[in-house]
Order: sequence, then C-alpha cells, then structure tokens
Amino acid sequence: MKSGSTFLLSARRCEIAELEQLARTCELVAVIARLIHALQRERGSSNVFLGSRGARFQAQREQQVDACVAMERDVRAALERLQTDPGEVRNGARLFGRIALVLYGLDDLPVLRQDIATHSVTAGDATAVFVKLISGLLGVVFEAADSATDPEISRALVAMFNFMQGKEFAGQERAFGARVFAAGFIDRAGQQQWRHLIESQRSCLETFDAFCGRVLRRAQEAMREPEVQEQIERLRRVGGTVGGDLDPELSDCWYHACTSRIDAMKGLEDMATNYLRHLCERRIAQAQGELRDQQTLLQSLASGGQAATGGPARYGPHLERSVLMLLQEQSRRLQTMGEELDAARATLQERKVVERAKGLLMAQHRMTEDEAYRALRETAMNQKRRLVEVANAVLSISGVLPASR
Amino acid sequence: MKSGSTFLLSARRCEIAELEQLARTCELVAVIARLIHALQRERGSSNVFLGSRGARFQAQREQQVDACVAMERDVRAALERLQTDPGEVRNGARLFGRIALVLYGLDDLPVLRQDIATHSVTAGDATAVFVKLISGLLGVVFEAADSATDPEISRALVAMFNFMQGKEFAGQERAFGARVFAAGFIDRAGQQQWRHLIESQRSCLETFDAFCGRVLRRAQEAMREPEVQEQIERLRRVGGTVGGDLDPELSDCWYHACTSRIDAMKGLEDMATNYLRHLCERRIAQAQGELRDQQTLLQSLASGGQAATGGPARYGPHLERSVLMLLQEQSRRLQTMGEELDAARATLQERKVVERAKGLLMAQHRMTEDEAYRALRETAMNQKRRLVEVANAVLSISGVLPASR
Repeated sequence: MKSGSTFLLSARRCEIAELEQLARTCELVAVIARLIHALQRERGSSNVFLGSRGARFQAQREQQVDACVAMERDVRAALERLQTDPGEVRNGARLFGRIALVLYGLDDLPVLRQDIATHSVTAGDATAVFVKLISGLLGVVFEAADSATDPEISRALVAMFNFMQGKEFAGQERAFGARVFAAGFIDRAGQQQWRHLIESQRSCLETFDAFCGRVLRRAQEAMREPEVQEQIERLRRVGGTVGGDLDPELSDCWYHACTSRIDAMKGLEDMATNYLRHLCERRIAQAQGELRDQQTLLQSLASGGQAATGGPARYGPHLERSVLMLLQEQSRRLQTMGEELDAARATLQERKVVERAKGLLMAQHRMTEDEAYRALRETAMNQKRRLVEVANAVLSISGVLPASR
Repeated sequence: MKSGSTFLLSARRCEIAELEQLARTCELVAVIARLIHALQRERGSSNVFLGSRGARFQAQREQQVDACVAMERDVRAALERLQTDPGEVRNGARLFGRIALVLYGLDDLPVLRQDIATHSVTAGDATAVFVKLISGLLGVVFEAADSATDPEISRALVAMFNFMQGKEFAGQERAFGARVFAAGFIDRAGQQQWRHLIESQRSCLETFDAFCGRVLRRAQEAMREPEVQEQIERLRRVGGTVGGDLDPELSDCWYHACTSRIDAMKGLEDMATNYLRHLCERRIAQAQGELRDQQTLLQSLASGGQAATGGPARYGPHLERSVLMLLQEQSRRLQTMGEELDAARATLQERKVVERAKGLLMAQHRMTEDEAYRALRETAMNQKRRLVEVANAVLSISGVLPASR
C-alpha cells in the first residue's frame, strides 16, 4: 500500500528524473549548436562557390561539408540516446515533431550538395534550404527551452536559444551585406531588410543578456572586440543608412569583420553549453542529496525515533515536526520554482505569437512562410511597431477578415 | 537508427500517453470529489453531535463515518493505480507532494473520530481538522488541473476545481450560518467573514461558468431551484446585512435550505466527473485514430507509393506532400493547443499568487496559515479590493519590509 512517505519520496524522484531528462536534452542542444555553426559556414562557402561560378572556395566548401557530416553524426547519435518511449519525455509531442522535421531536412542535404557541386542550383535557392534547416534546428532548441522544469536551467536555455538565434541573424546579415557590397548598390527595400536583421539581432542579444547570468555576462564583456564592432557599425552606416552606390571593394572587408565577430560569438556559445552541462550536473547532485536526507529521516522515524521524541502531535499529520516542515518547505519551493519558470517562459511567448500569425497568413492568404514573415516585418517597419505587436494585431482580426482562397 | 518517421510517430504516441495519464488523474479527481462530499457531511454531523453534547446526530455521524471510510478506500485504491515511477508522470513532483500531505492527514482521522466520540475535542477544533484535510484534497485537484496537457480537458478540470472549491465554501457558509443563528447574535467581524464566504463562492462559480462548456451550463440551469435560492438570500440578508440579535429558530431553516442547495451541487458535480471521463475517452480514441492514419500513410510511402506519384520534390524534405502537410498541420495544432492551455491555466494563476502571499506572511511574520489568510482577506474587505490584488501588493513589497523575527 502506498503511504504518504511513498509519495513524498516519489515526488523527489520525479524531480530527479525530470532533471536527468533535461540534462539529455541539454546535451542535444550542445551538439545542435555545433551542427548549426558548421552549417552556417557551409552555407557561406557554398554561397561564395556558387557566386564565383566555382572559381573560389572549392576546397573550403568540401572541407566544410566533411565537418557538417561529422557534426550531423553527433546529432543523430544524441537523438539515438534520447528517450522516445511515450510518457518518458515532457513536451514529447512538440519536441519530437520538431525533430522529425529536422531529420527529414537532413536526409535531403546530400541531394543539395550534389546540386551545388554541379552548379545546378542558384546561390539564393541553396541559401534558402540552409536557412530553413537551421531554423528547424533552432526550433528544437526552442522546444527544449519551453519544456524545462527547472527555473535556473530554463533561464539558461532561454538565454542559449536567444543567443543562437541572434548568431544566426548575424550570419544572415554577413551574407546579406557581402552580397549587397559585391553588387555595388542597395535600394530602399534592401536597406529595410538590413535594418530588420540588425534589429532582430539586437532583440535576441538583449534577451540573452537578461537571462544569461553573471558568469556568461562577464565572459561576453571580456570577449568584446571594440575595433571589430566599430568597423561593422561604420560599414552598416555606409550600406544601410547612406545607401545608393557602394564600393564593391568593401565586400571582403565587411565579410572579415563579421566573421571575426561571429567567431567570438561561437566562443561564447561553447562556454554557454559548458555552463548548461555544469548546471544540470549540479542540480541533479543537489536533488539526489536531498532525496538521501529525506530517506534517512523517514527511516529513522519508522524505526522508532518517533516514540523517543514524545509521540505524534494530536491533530495535523501525526508526524515529526521535521517531516512536516520538510513537506512545507518542499511545497513552497516547488511553487516558487513554478512561478520563476513562468517568468522565464514568458519571453518565449512572443516568438509563439509571431509563429502563429505567420501560420495564419500562410493558411488564410496562401502565402509561403517567407512571404508571411516579410509581410509582418514590413508592416512593423512601416508602422514603427514591434514585430510581436503586428503579429498580435493580425491574430486579433483573424476572424474579421475573409480568407482569400 | 531513428528516422524522421520514428519521431513523427513518437510525437503522436507521447500525446496518447499523456492523455492516458490524464485519464487516470481524472479518475482520481472523481473519487476525491466523492470523498470530499462525504467528509463535508461528516464534518457537519460531527459539528451538531459535539454542539448538542451528543444529544443529536449520533447515528447519522456513525453512518457518515462508515461512508467516509468506504470513500477513503476508493481514493487509496486510485492512488495505488497511479503511476509513481519517476519520469512517468507530468508534474509528478508537485502532485505527489500534495498527495503525501493528504495521506498523512487521512492517517490521522481515526484519532480525531475517537476524540469526537468521547467529546475530547471542541466542535471548532474538529472542524478545523476537516477543513484542512478537504483543502489538501482540493490541492490535489488543483495540481491535476495545472498539469493537464490537453486544452479541452484542462478547461474541464479548471471548471471542476472551481466548482468543488465553490461547493466547499458553500459548506463552510452552511456551518457558519447555522452556528451564528443558533447563537442568536452576529457582530461586525462575523458579518465580514460571512460576506467573504459568499464572495469566495461567487468568484469560484463564475470561473466554473466560464469554463464548464455548454452541456454542464445547461444542466446547471435545469437544476436551479429558485425558491431555495430565494430563501438563502433572505436569510443571508437577515444575518449578514441586518445583523445584531438573531432568531435561533432560523438555524434549522437555514441549514435545510443550504443542504438542499449543496445536494443539487453534488448532482452537478457527478455530471461533471462523468463528462470529464467521456472527454478523456473521446480524446484518446481520436489520437489513436490519427496515429493509425499516420502509420498507414508512412507505410504506403515506404513501400513505393512515393515513386508512383512522381518521386520526391528536389528541395525541402523529400517527402510526399501529404506527409509535409500532416507535419505542418500537427505542429500548428500543437501550437494552438499550447496557447489555449496557457489561457485555461491563467485562471489558476490567481490562486497561486494568493498561496504565495500567504506563505510569505507565514514565513516573514510568523503567522499561521489561517492568520495569514485572514489578514489578506480583511485587508481586501477594508480596502474594497480583490484578494489577488492585495496578495500581489504583499508580494511586491516583500523585499521592502523587514521580516519580524
């Protein structure tokens, strides 16, 4: 027969099992971060290779493909280790849906690479496939952050997700700027797109800053390279603000400054994944220690410690005061944890709203995902409103506007 | 090697496992509802028995004790069936903590009953023990509602929790009014307490109304007894609003009107638990059907259906359009579900805020739970503000005020 003590210990064991599952998810996030970085580089070198009609970056690209294949192997191995038995994974339905999408995307990479090697695809189309795959991988990290049950780890995952997303925007800006400088001209629409990439980065990195904690914030400050940042700002002004005709010579200069910045970001990302691992290990050890203490306490009560201290109180659970206090402390702690968790998750809410508005536009107005996002973004730009505000407005009038079929 | 299709099917299986676990939790809620009802009646008859110094309700009380013992057996059996293996239960840490507290409380009941039989306890003290135990049982229902992963079931559980809580306030009001009428007098503090019991009921039943759905709302309307309600309102005015000296003859009249209302509530509660069971069964059957459809689709693709329809698209997952649409539909549905779930859970938020403010007052100002609640309630009454507003104010200045040690 299950007693109060059975459930008291079960509660603690559940907490440990959730933390262990979370640790495996964090491992997955770490290998995904490395795969994304490798894919970002493959995307860059494929772009140059296709743009130069095969004259440049042939060897670099092939090397980078090998690196990606190795990283992909690591990700698949981590997925192999992931529990997929139903009931074992919190948020499994959503997490696994995202993973399925990523795996189908990875299955397609060999075909794309073949097409790039034989110049059967444009630079723009190839980039779009990489962007989509990376976005899918970020989606897995997003679900991992959204399913975390420990506030400290949840905050670290929210920071991590925003940093990775910010780094991806930085990569997209690098490619965009290089293309624009090389073309020697930028129009108003291009300038707007550029501003949006800058704005999206800023917003992600601000959220990272709010959630990363002191250790990572200090590391970030230590890694800052003011000259690089200054050069990027100067070139952003030349291209994005002044506009019109551009000096094609600036393309390489831009590319190198951005690369130097992104490499520094990669360094910080590695630190963040290590920090995440350390956090999981510490929390598991702590919860296990608490479980042992509880077991000892309950055993000593069962073996007669109770009688020695004067017997049970008359009303209220007939338990040692120590167990009652333990129960109250535990319930208060879980409650506070739940609230801190809600606070961390609230920042993920905005992304959900934007995703949903995009989905609505796609379904009701037969737009592609890219068109839907562009429509939201441009409305936000024109009305000088935040993206999430426009997305909310779209959702709130969804029942009012007729669907265009 | 796990493929995209493995994860696609795992996602659906996770959904089913979560629904099945939820169905078991709903079964637990149903038996808890019956135990609470029996305990409410035992509390009432114990009160009369002790108040009349054993002259009245001796047989009724003994009968009711037997009924409670039988219901308790059902609850313990349902707990026995509950999965307690770590990792099997969503929200296990919090749910099991609440269950532990309830089991320790149930273990104490025989001692209390003995004391009631021998008149070694006052009516007030006995009532306090029952109130605390019932509040613990409601806590289990609360965690069940907070851990539901399906928006429809979550709404039904939120409705159920609020109804049960409202019914408990109705029971407390019945006891309070009977005592006050019997005493023949009510002071201002008593009137305030009475108004609070009425206000708490109203707020719970409003939330029930917002979440119960059409079927239960109609049933509620059909069950309404206008004469009983009118009589209760009239007596509330006599006792709560006019006040001062009261006619002790009204005590029985009040008790019977309230009992008639509470019995009608019990009927609706039974309907609600049946509805909950039906909802779980329907959602599980639906998810299983969808899983079978997906399996069929993926199998037909694997066995060459793909080649027959023209082979894979070049970029984007090399899959049938049907699987891609299925994936997108599934991800959109899960996203919408997540948002609906958040909306339903938001109503549970207020209770959490009040609980936390209570905990804070208890810890920082060495109050008992009852004193803390009374302090919050009286501030709310005096300032004509909602309880949750006062609780929020308490939390927001918690860092400002020094703790009284």
